[in-house]
Amino acid sequence: MNDPINLLSKFDLFSDHWSPKVVAEMNDYQFKLVKLKGSFVRHNHTETDEVFIVIEGSMGIELSDKTVELNEGEMAVVPRGRLHRPFATEECKVLLVEPRGVVNTGSAGGEQTAVNDVWI
Amino acid sequence: MNDPINLLSKFDLFSDHWSPKVVAEMNDYQFKLVKLKGSFVRHNHTETDEVFIVIEGSMGIELSDKTVELNEGEMAVVPRGRLHRPFATEECKVLLVEPRGVVNTGSAGGEQTAVNDVWI
Repeated sequence: MNDPINLLSKFDLFSDHWSPKVVAEMNDYQFKLVKLKGSFVRHNHTETDEVFIVIEGSMGIELSDKTVELNEGEMAVVPRGRLHRPFATEECKVLLVEPRGVVNTGSAGGEQTAVNDVWI
Repeated sequence: MNDPINLLSKFDLFSDHWSPKVVAEMNDYQFKLVKLKGSFVRHNHTETDEVFIVIEGSMGIELSDKTVELNEGEMAVVPRGRLHRPFATEECKVLLVEPRGVVNTGSAGGEQTAVNDVWI
């Protein structure tokens, strides 16, 4: 069994935005840290739900019919197929949980697409 | 999409120890809150890894060859099949992530076995 993972210490290891880093795997799922700032592309994931857990700061998720605000210590599940656009006015530190291989921009692609399986 | 889940507010809704409550599902995985205090039975889960994320307080996980200490803001993955005994001297608030249907005492059973699928 690996050593415990200190989430805030791991966040100190990178500074780029919208570029998830893997810190742990459980079965075929990954736990990824990501720093959000600004606006992300609207996209969906047709094969999986996606979990956001806010570790520090605040973020929003714009959906077709509403905008959800997520603050520190809060989590949300974006259902599979649901179009969503994450954004953060100030930098926000987030823990993502999703199956291995999920691409951050999902169906949308484009320049905000990050390389997968970058471990820290 | 459901409203955001405030983890600390959810912890205010129950007081029993070693009795996980489901707060969210992602695909066939569940996110469960549990309050730990005292010692749990040594057990393993032969079919799945298990994730512990400490939201408040400190806990330990005793393995066959070492004891891992987990503090607030830290997470650990117990690999499938690995015998482990969670414990906490003072009450500790933990977020568990594991597949739907996992029994808390795994292979061990006994009086600390909790009812599954209790949502809060």
